[in-house]
Amino acid sequence: MAESNRQILLKARPSGRPGPEHFELVERPLPEPGRGEVLLRHRVLSLDPYMRGRMDDAASYAKPVALGEVMEGECVAEVLASHHPGYAPGDWVRGARGWQTHSAAHGSTLVKLPSTGGVPPSAYLGVLGMPGTTAWVGVTEIGRPKPGEVFVVSAASGAVGSVAGQIAKKLGCRVIGIAGGPEKCRYVTEELGFDACLDHRGDLGAALDEACPEGIDVYFENVGGAVQEAVFPRMRSFGRIAFCGTVATYNVRPLPPGPNLGALVKKKLRLQGFIVSDHPQAWVEWQRIGGAWVAEGSLRWREDRAKGLENAPEAFIGLLEGKNFGKLVVEI
Amino acid sequence: MAESNRQILLKARPSGRPGPEHFELVERPLPEPGRGEVLLRHRVLSLDPYMRGRMDDAASYAKPVALGEVMEGECVAEVLASHHPGYAPGDWVRGARGWQTHSAAHGSTLVKLPSTGGVPPSAYLGVLGMPGTTAWVGVTEIGRPKPGEVFVVSAASGAVGSVAGQIAKKLGCRVIGIAGGPEKCRYVTEELGFDACLDHRGDLGAALDEACPEGIDVYFENVGGAVQEAVFPRMRSFGRIAFCGTVATYNVRPLPPGPNLGALVKKKLRLQGFIVSDHPQAWVEWQRIGGAWVAEGSLRWREDRAKGLENAPEAFIGLLEGKNFGKLVVEI
Repeated sequence: MAESNRQILLKARPSGRPGPEHFELVERPLPEPGRGEVLLRHRVLSLDPYMRGRMDDAASYAKPVALGEVMEGECVAEVLASHHPGYAPGDWVRGARGWQTHSAAHGSTLVKLPSTGGVPPSAYLGVLGMPGTTAWVGVTEIGRPKPGEVFVVSAASGAVGSVAGQIAKKLGCRVIGIAGGPEKCRYVTEELGFDACLDHRGDLGAALDEACPEGIDVYFENVGGAVQEAVFPRMRSFGRIAFCGTVATYNVRPLPPGPNLGALVKKKLRLQGFIVSDHPQAWVEWQRIGGAWVAEGSLRWREDRAKGLENAPEAFIGLLEGKNFGKLVVEI
Repeated sequence: MAESNRQILLKARPSGRPGPEHFELVERPLPEPGRGEVLLRHRVLSLDPYMRGRMDDAASYAKPVALGEVMEGECVAEVLASHHPGYAPGDWVRGARGWQTHSAAHGSTLVKLPSTGGVPPSAYLGVLGMPGTTAWVGVTEIGRPKPGEVFVVSAASGAVGSVAGQIAKKLGCRVIGIAGGPEKCRYVTEELGFDACLDHRGDLGAALDEACPEGIDVYFENVGGAVQEAVFPRMRSFGRIAFCGTVATYNVRPLPPGPNLGALVKKKLRLQGFIVSDHPQAWVEWQRIGGAWVAEGSLRWREDRAKGLENAPEAFIGLLEGKNFGKLVVEI
């Protein structure tokens, strides 16, 4: 094969907003798959807000990407050659193989994608991948809404928020999304079937007062910042906030303060952060339950596709600013 | 009887620190017990930080005290006369009878105190009353520490904190108290048996780093403010904060901001507020379990006694500033 492996490396650590200067595109020889390994041609790369945290040199739930290393990320890929009995050329797999066109990976680190069901492979990066499973954990294990409760989710048209709200609808909640701009809001109500969607570019506090005058029982937090400020004082007694992410402040240093927490006592609130990787059983559940919903067409999703590995940095920078509309992936 | 009923009324609402001008001592005729009621001579009144919230005209988990009404509070009292088959003169009871010397109360609103066991009646306002039960709920239902974990509690010499830390010790935790001044800290380690006690008047952050370099698994929050600021960034992954109260900011308006909550995701933290009255079964549990510990002498407590109903306002104002040493009560 004459092909080479193209990679995007972390070149420098941003202190706030990342720019093209923090990434570097390099060309390397194709890797040689070793014993038990397969050679992969990456087809679609997932871009997700958590990757911003990996660019910092700070302790978190996962190690930072080292300078000069390939940026981390999940992709779906085609097997080109296999030294592992579980895989054959032409198989499709999902794996955390990074921002590159090829890689050699041990078979045990990959998940083979089902070849039936009419689900496109990239769905396993979104609605049936990490973001969908994250929504499943955040709703069913952390927020735990009851039928009839008011469920609010921010970044409602995004990869996680769109699924979280649809799960809450299936659980019998009144579901209110928060999104940026009329187009996304229309999509959230008309396509996803939420009861309402509020534009955070307007007066969100007033809009919340109108949409849920009785207050909020469960808030699925994806953004932080000004949206959190508007939602927090409107939580009802015994309310729960599932902290999935706070993308609005990923590029902000120093971090702005949060709400005074005295309200936790007065309202008996529960605030809980979570990371999907701590809930391995949820992956199994979600493949089964979410997979059936996707197959029957009762769970909707939308993809925002950038084309070409070289455009991944720009697409990722836009993701942190809410420029994507649906699950952001890169066609490689 | 020539006696009259002396009462302390809420005269005005403080905007920050309460002063004597917000209370009024009045003399009223003794109440006449009606059908099913008993006439009570209050003996000991409990003073607790939550009463500050009742002085504000703001929505909370309980209604505010109305202007001109008797201040709310639990007391232990002796039955002087009874129109209820469950009570006889000379019985001791506990009830939410307010800041006054006498009251008439329906028998169904009172709890009769056991006459055996050698436990003084005022213990049912503290270690075996609302504060002790609060500690039991906060540790066993909210914070849920595991053996070997690091448990930190603020206001560690106080009515709730002293019990919370002792429960956590019995659960096998390493328990670190935070208190104000060397005398309280000495009491917490020498009398209560905590593993360490840190003076929040010093450099608390540095003291925490030394006392628990590995971080904090469970924090029992009684004070908020600067103590919370020092504890929050030192929480470990999967840490829990049981929010019992934030007395340091009860007199502060506007409320200061809190920590940025992005750490909830990174560390998978759970922050949860609670009010003991939402946990009725805990009262039953704690009477049995805490009662046995008190009887066998394995649970220590300390009372700070003011004398005379007329001194209740001053004692209460001091409580909000940490001037008490142990459970604050007023001998009437």
